[in-house]
Amino acid sequence: MNTVYNFSAGPAVLPAAVLHTAQQEMLDYNGTGIPVMSMSHRSAEFQSILYHAEQDLRLLLNVPDNYKILFLQGGASAQFSQVAMNFSHGFKRIDSVVTGNWSQTAHRQMEKSTAAEIHLAAHGGTQYDYCDLPPVSEWDISKDSAFVHFVANETVHGLQYRQMPKLSDGLPPLICDMSSEILSRPIDVADFGVIYAGAQKNLGPAGVTIVIIREDLLERCPDSVPAVWNYKAHVEKQGMYNTPATYPIYIAGLVLRWLQTQGGVGQMAFINRRKADMLYRAIDGSGGFYRNAIHPDARSQMNVIFSTGDAGLDERFAQEAALCGLRQLKGYKTLGGMRASIYNAMPIEGVSALVEFMADFQRKNG
Amino acid sequence: MNTVYNFSAGPAVLPAAVLHTAQQEMLDYNGTGIPVMSMSHRSAEFQSILYHAEQDLRLLLNVPDNYKILFLQGGASAQFSQVAMNFSHGFKRIDSVVTGNWSQTAHRQMEKSTAAEIHLAAHGGTQYDYCDLPPVSEWDISKDSAFVHFVANETVHGLQYRQMPKLSDGLPPLICDMSSEILSRPIDVADFGVIYAGAQKNLGPAGVTIVIIREDLLERCPDSVPAVWNYKAHVEKQGMYNTPATYPIYIAGLVLRWLQTQGGVGQMAFINRRKADMLYRAIDGSGGFYRNAIHPDARSQMNVIFSTGDAGLDERFAQEAALCGLRQLKGYKTLGGMRASIYNAMPIEGVSALVEFMADFQRKNG
Repeated sequence: MNTVYNFSAGPAVLPAAVLHTAQQEMLDYNGTGIPVMSMSHRSAEFQSILYHAEQDLRLLLNVPDNYKILFLQGGASAQFSQVAMNFSHGFKRIDSVVTGNWSQTAHRQMEKSTAAEIHLAAHGGTQYDYCDLPPVSEWDISKDSAFVHFVANETVHGLQYRQMPKLSDGLPPLICDMSSEILSRPIDVADFGVIYAGAQKNLGPAGVTIVIIREDLLERCPDSVPAVWNYKAHVEKQGMYNTPATYPIYIAGLVLRWLQTQGGVGQMAFINRRKADMLYRAIDGSGGFYRNAIHPDARSQMNVIFSTGDAGLDERFAQEAALCGLRQLKGYKTLGGMRASIYNAMPIEGVSALVEFMADFQRKNG
Repeated sequence: MNTVYNFSAGPAVLPAAVLHTAQQEMLDYNGTGIPVMSMSHRSAEFQSILYHAEQDLRLLLNVPDNYKILFLQGGASAQFSQVAMNFSHGFKRIDSVVTGNWSQTAHRQMEKSTAAEIHLAAHGGTQYDYCDLPPVSEWDISKDSAFVHFVANETVHGLQYRQMPKLSDGLPPLICDMSSEILSRPIDVADFGVIYAGAQKNLGPAGVTIVIIREDLLERCPDSVPAVWNYKAHVEKQGMYNTPATYPIYIAGLVLRWLQTQGGVGQMAFINRRKADMLYRAIDGSGGFYRNAIHPDARSQMNVIFSTGDAGLDERFAQEAALCGLRQLKGYKTLGGMRASIYNAMPIEGVSALVEFMADFQRKNG
């Protein structure tokens, strides 16, 4: 059998070293005689796992001291509602930037979660047909809005803000869904009010969600929000308001440790750029056989979408690639085509193998 | 080192056979070349894992066809709010039975999640000082209420309805938190409108929550409830509205399969009764050295609480027991004393070892 490379958009490939450690420790964590999955979340052993995961995340992203970190459940889908419920009390408006499938979903779910108006500050679909991203200068923002929400990398549409948006002083806090790009490149956490990310792409298994919150914003969380969805309640209980997803947190902790051994986020950014460049060069150099219509400056370095323009041929591409060990290359159900998700844990060898397969497939079908 | 027995109230002991399988399959599930943690939730492989987990649960609990099963996130704490948000629209009242710590928390969180009044239908604290359970005949229920909520087994206070409550025809649907007892004994699912359970006690690791819903109740779920917390939205998307906690679901599936190899829920009930009887006999036969004030008919078969009446001695009991491999016997923080959680996966040998240690400790300190 060929080496298997998993291009799934999430849950996604994890570092082999992480899985090996998890396998070794499955029945007995660190000589305690207790498996991680059976540990009380309040035990000293699990508290140590959680502490180190948080510290490693702080170190990797250089998180300032005035930011709290939570490991919650429910994925980004829960955060869409939670940010609106927790941070808009007493405000009339939230500014929402729509740039693809996920920010559109966030927009709709925020509408169900607050009495405030969800104002469409920019729309990458109507303005650019999802082939480019509205720059911050085009966002229609009010200084009286509760916050500004956007998605840094659109997993489905394959778009990413290469230059991370930053708001001028005096504007509302910026809240960002970084699910599909967190830890793929350096960011300045201080530019954000809240950063959240479902772990199942760049950070670990499905079931745990990282939330990084500037602590002054916690004062906004109303007591009327049920505690399980109230950030303040979770911070007050040091993340132990309810039983967290202990095993997914443990795995995320192993991924964070692995990232440090790889040289941290700066080194990851370097490798990620190389991997993405290899794929986009293969697409652009195919003489039109493979296509990606996105403006070069807005192309995602995490999710590379492409198509032959022929649905039947795209289908065969994904099928034949899978037989060669290149799995999960089928595009998102509503868009068709192909999608190669090349998160941190995808080795450069996997991208090389895909580029080779693309050339081979073109020779046979071009 | 002694054999380690983990009496944690949750996350709790898992069957060794389950952990061995998980260890073997960590890097490659069933020859697919993909680890379970890295599988797309929409892949055929994961869909098969989910399908079998659901079918095994249906078989074990004899779930009627008109009930839907969901594997959600957020634990029972999220369900407290979700049942109120989803099922009380257009109703003025919910009837809530408080019998201990968890039903009290459910009561308070339901108040934050609906405009309906949360009516205290019975209170085991004021009526029985949490040493007995109010029988259904004493519950003050209105036929016009949205539903009646109770907790079958109170993990903290060590109380359990030995005869499972059942409402007469014409009364509202019964909604039950079975987190700490699901699959420990046969139940008649048809007596309930909704059953929910965080998995981390009797069913698997933390991070997945089972919800069994009578399908006519789905019609009540208002579109205004954010989709991530809306049961109808999850059922309509076959549990794939958002990315589920795939690995915890896989482990829960292994536990369900293990339960079948052990003879199912009937056999579990037989063993669980034996384990609980051994411990309560040791307490009652200690001549007052160990105490449990709960009425014999209301004593939990899952969480056995006891105390020497001396906080310092209780502390030493837990410490010395831990040195003998009997872990996590300290009682809940607000109650003190000891608590032995003896879920399905606790072998009878663990309970024997605890009973021996109790006698030994009494000889030295009695």
